[in-house]
Amino acid sequence: MITISAFERSPDGGKGLARDTRVRWALEEVGQPYQVRGLSFNALKEPAHLARNPFGAIPAFEDGELVLFESGGIVHHLAQTYPGLFPTDPNARARAITWMYAAVNTVEPPILELQTAKFSEGDKPWTAERMPLIRERIDVRLVQLATRLGDAEWIDGAFSAGDLMLISVILRLRPSGILAAHPTLAAYVARGEARPAYQRAYESQVQR
Amino acid sequence: MITISAFERSPDGGKGLARDTRVRWALEEVGQPYQVRGLSFNALKEPAHLARNPFGAIPAFEDGELVLFESGGIVHHLAQTYPGLFPTDPNARARAITWMYAAVNTVEPPILELQTAKFSEGDKPWTAERMPLIRERIDVRLVQLATRLGDAEWIDGAFSAGDLMLISVILRLRPSGILAAHPTLAAYVARGEARPAYQRAYESQVQR
Repeated sequence: MITISAFERSPDGGKGLARDTRVRWALEEVGQPYQVRGLSFNALKEPAHLARNPFGAIPAFEDGELVLFESGGIVHHLAQTYPGLFPTDPNARARAITWMYAAVNTVEPPILELQTAKFSEGDKPWTAERMPLIRERIDVRLVQLATRLGDAEWIDGAFSAGDLMLISVILRLRPSGILAAHPTLAAYVARGEARPAYQRAYESQVQR
Repeated sequence: MITISAFERSPDGGKGLARDTRVRWALEEVGQPYQVRGLSFNALKEPAHLARNPFGAIPAFEDGELVLFESGGIVHHLAQTYPGLFPTDPNARARAITWMYAAVNTVEPPILELQTAKFSEGDKPWTAERMPLIRERIDVRLVQLATRLGDAEWIDGAFSAGDLMLISVILRLRPSGILAAHPTLAAYVARGEARPAYQRAYESQVQR
C-alpha cells in the first residue's frame, strides 16, 4: 500500500495549495489507493521524517522499499509506473517531462518568491515596495505560458503530468488575485480542477 | 545530429554558470556529439527561438523532430535515451529522478533569489539588507543536503543525473563565496568538476 506524508493540518486551511495535493491528484489520475501519514510541523524535523525527506518538507512517498520525496519526483514516478499521465509516444513523453521541469524550475520560482516575501519577509519595511517587482516577474512567465497554450485545452496534446504540474504551480497564485488577471490560464486551471481526479484529491486533503 | 541553443556570448564570461553547461555535461557523459546554435540576447525573443523555448531562454535541444527546452527536461531525456546517467534498477532510477527535481525545485529556488536580488534589484535600497536573509535560506538547504550526502562520494550510489543537476545548481554559488563555507558540498562539486565529461563541457562553452 502506498503511503504519503502530508501536513496533519494544512497551513492553508485546506485550500489545496500544499505540495501533497499534486501527489494526491496524480494518485487519483492513475487510480492507485493510498494512505496518509499526517505530520505536525515539529515532526517534519525529526529523524524519522528526515530519513524520508532530507529537506524536512512534505510530501514524502513510500511503497514497499521505495522511499521518495519532492512532489515532482513522486508525480514522475507515478506517471512512469502506471498508465494515464505520460503519452506512450517517446517524443511526446519527453515533451511532457520537459513541461514538468518547466513548471517547477521556470514558472514556480517567481511564485515561490511571492510566498517568501509574504511569509518570511512580511514584516520587513521593503516588502510592500518589492511586491510589484515580484508580480512583474510572475506576469512575464504567465504571459509566455499563456501564449504557448493559446486556445488549446492542454499544453501539448492530451492531458499529461506536464499539465498536472503546471496547473498545480499556477493554482498557488489564486489567493494573490494574480491568476484572475490571466484569463487564458485561469480557464486552464479551471479545466484541471474540473477533472474528477482533482476533485477527489482536493476533498481528501480538506477532510483530513 | 543533436543541436543545442546557447548564448552566443555567455553573460558570465565563460564561468560555466549558464544552464547550457548542464546539458553539455550530460551530452559528454553519454558520449553524444552535438552542435551549438549561438544566440544573441535579442535572438532569444524572436519567433524562431520562442518556437523552441516558449520562455525565451536557453538552453533548447533539437534532435530530428524532437524539440525540447528546460535544462532538467533535456538532461532527463538524455539520461533516459543513452546509458550512463540513470541507474538500471527501477527504484534507484526513481530516486535519481527525485534528486533531479530536488535540485531544481528545492535547492535552486533560494539560489535564484540571490541572482534576482543581484541582477534585478541590485540598485534597490533594500538589497544589501536582504542579502543575509537570502543567504540564510540558502544555508538551510545546503546544510540539509550536506547532512544527507555525509561522507558519500555521490548522493545515492553511483554518479547519476541527480548528481549532475545538484552539482550544477550548487556551482552557481561559487562567485558569492557561499560554497566555500560548506566544505562537504565544495568537495562534492570538486568531484563533479574533476570528471572528464565536465571538463570537456566546460571547455566547449569557454571556447565558443
